[in-house]
Amino acid sequence: MADINANYLNLRSSYLFSEIAARVAAHAAKNPDQKIIRLGIGDVTQPLVPSVIKALQDAVNEQSTAAGFKGYGPEQGYDFLREAIVKDSYPGLGIGADEIFVSDGAKCDVGNFQELFATGCKVAITDPVYPVYADANVMAGRGGAPDGSGRFAGMIYLPCTAENGFVPELPKEKPDLIYLCYPNNPTGTVLTRDQLKVWVDYARKNDAIIFYDSAYECFIREPGIPHSIYEVDGAREVAVEFRSYSKTAGFTGLRCGYAVVPKTVTGKAPDGSRVALNTLWNRRQTTKYNGCPYIVQRAAEAVHSAQGKKEVTAVVEGYLANSKLIKNAFEKMGLTVVGGTNAPYVWVKVPMNSWDFFTLLLEKAGVVGTPGAGFGPSGQEYFRLTGFGSPENTREAIERLRSLKL
Amino acid sequence: MADINANYLNLRSSYLFSEIAARVAAHAAKNPDQKIIRLGIGDVTQPLVPSVIKALQDAVNEQSTAAGFKGYGPEQGYDFLREAIVKDSYPGLGIGADEIFVSDGAKCDVGNFQELFATGCKVAITDPVYPVYADANVMAGRGGAPDGSGRFAGMIYLPCTAENGFVPELPKEKPDLIYLCYPNNPTGTVLTRDQLKVWVDYARKNDAIIFYDSAYECFIREPGIPHSIYEVDGAREVAVEFRSYSKTAGFTGLRCGYAVVPKTVTGKAPDGSRVALNTLWNRRQTTKYNGCPYIVQRAAEAVHSAQGKKEVTAVVEGYLANSKLIKNAFEKMGLTVVGGTNAPYVWVKVPMNSWDFFTLLLEKAGVVGTPGAGFGPSGQEYFRLTGFGSPENTREAIERLRSLKL
Repeated sequence: MADINANYLNLRSSYLFSEIAARVAAHAAKNPDQKIIRLGIGDVTQPLVPSVIKALQDAVNEQSTAAGFKGYGPEQGYDFLREAIVKDSYPGLGIGADEIFVSDGAKCDVGNFQELFATGCKVAITDPVYPVYADANVMAGRGGAPDGSGRFAGMIYLPCTAENGFVPELPKEKPDLIYLCYPNNPTGTVLTRDQLKVWVDYARKNDAIIFYDSAYECFIREPGIPHSIYEVDGAREVAVEFRSYSKTAGFTGLRCGYAVVPKTVTGKAPDGSRVALNTLWNRRQTTKYNGCPYIVQRAAEAVHSAQGKKEVTAVVEGYLANSKLIKNAFEKMGLTVVGGTNAPYVWVKVPMNSWDFFTLLLEKAGVVGTPGAGFGPSGQEYFRLTGFGSPENTREAIERLRSLKL
Repeated sequence: MADINANYLNLRSSYLFSEIAARVAAHAAKNPDQKIIRLGIGDVTQPLVPSVIKALQDAVNEQSTAAGFKGYGPEQGYDFLREAIVKDSYPGLGIGADEIFVSDGAKCDVGNFQELFATGCKVAITDPVYPVYADANVMAGRGGAPDGSGRFAGMIYLPCTAENGFVPELPKEKPDLIYLCYPNNPTGTVLTRDQLKVWVDYARKNDAIIFYDSAYECFIREPGIPHSIYEVDGAREVAVEFRSYSKTAGFTGLRCGYAVVPKTVTGKAPDGSRVALNTLWNRRQTTKYNGCPYIVQRAAEAVHSAQGKKEVTAVVEGYLANSKLIKNAFEKMGLTVVGGTNAPYVWVKVPMNSWDFFTLLLEKAGVVGTPGAGFGPSGQEYFRLTGFGSPENTREAIERLRSLKL
């Protein structure tokens, strides 16, 4: 009898962004003449930068000759990229190239990493939250039954709302695995080094592991905001970090990211001994993954070159300028807004249910955003917009928003 | 307390091919002047064909312009590729484009697909077997403790040896999930349509699911050998199929494959209702995967064009010619050999323990193969070599083998 994994039945029927895509497609089919502006799913819009294109072209040419052809690469990523990452992104933080695991993106890594832990581990996530953290754990049996609000009975929630300045408080119940994402998706807020240290100290004290998603670190502009959790003392004992080239360098369609798994981070085996997560993740990746394409890894390497960095930074500046425009526009409408300063996301408190606001914006303005409720019940009265549009589309979306007279 | 997934402790300490890579690296370091010929891991050696290179270059150019840029694609793959697959690889077999899920390779798909099933499902695998099927299930808790022979107590083994003509017999104990790979890795043997029908009928009768890995179907040259399990009546109710461009078109370093999940294949929910695996896999992929790179999907599409097919078929013919050379050489040495006719793999019975044979070949001849024991205890006296070398290297390897006077 092929019994299914019944945990899947606890999930919402579709992944948030698939649901949005379906609703937008239905609207577009009914309104073929309306120009829809998508500031929802968080996809970038600017083309790949010249250094990346050049690296891709060169790598494709290599693949066309017997001498240059590359077949299976190391599942962990090529040394040239792992070393470039350490040198460029983790200087002085004590991270080694063999602690970097290149992948086809942070979504896969944050979704898969929980496999290394026992089903009985207790998971803490913020509310609102990037849905993958919750859904991957629900699939693995750590969620339990859903309640009416969209939460799962088996998980610990850390509310992040205007009331606590969007800074999660330490939970009463003790979690084993803690997901943190800063700069935050969806709120666009950040943690200072001291605020992050509270969590590192907590994890050390309680033998918990922090899954730190820093996919948006390249948007940080203010000083004192850590780009990596390893800037906090002690994090190398309790934290793994996930990064992505998606937003940094426009790789959403090219697919590359990486997990940082220090050899000093361990979990507990049934006999009480400690097992390095680096060893377990290496076993997982070599067994169930076959490496990121060579040509994509060469493209990622180019992002770390001096010229590449200059080019991708200019693109990021453009997205940040869009985010500020959106933030300012909402503020002028008298709405409460966070994010948009060190992050591409703008998180605005809306005067109605967030799915109603989604429908209103889509139908009346042809603008697609993401309803806060999709990220958890604490997002019910919030809405997320992104700075990832083109400057022209962003300005037009703002004009359309203004005309709604919210 | 961050308890690890203790099932990992049941695994061998390293993945087979990682282990081989490590042993070869150690040998190479000690013998820097010896030219090592690698006929082990099953990696291809010929460059990507011109149609694929052209498609990659065009797609890279698209990504360099705002108008042509593609960000996040559908997690299931672009329609252009899904439709090309249906038209070219499944004509008349009743498979729809929405039953094709494009991925970054069959290794990931066969590793991940078991997630859709309950931990209590009983798994049957052949022995010898591609290690991913076993290891992925061990990680998920379906393996149980390893015994001394390299088998796991919780799994059902289907021995394939010279005694049964390398055709697995129906098991006494009833499995829920059955992994079959034809043309077979590692033995290079095939099943006729009638032999495969036995398994489809068995799965239908026993409410089991067949995971059919047809990654090597492009090597089939003899008539009457099914390229797809859907050539067998009833398979659309009980089988999912995994395919890859790795061997078909040299994509081992480019990464693309796909799973075929007919909507008619279902598993059982706890309440006795049936759930379509297509729905579950869609949920899994949209949640934990972010799609295969656009440029790679364009490359895969080119493989299905008339010119692309002509080019990749010529490469495959070359590999098959190598396989036949190896097979003939072993036969002339008086050894028993199978495979090499409808598959790139040659499976030879060796006169000693297979790891000893591995060491002998590496040290005395500088030729890397794969010890049969690495695929399971029934492979203990066998050795796998592949036709994926260059013709020159293959000839040289054969000369060196001859000189060993086995």
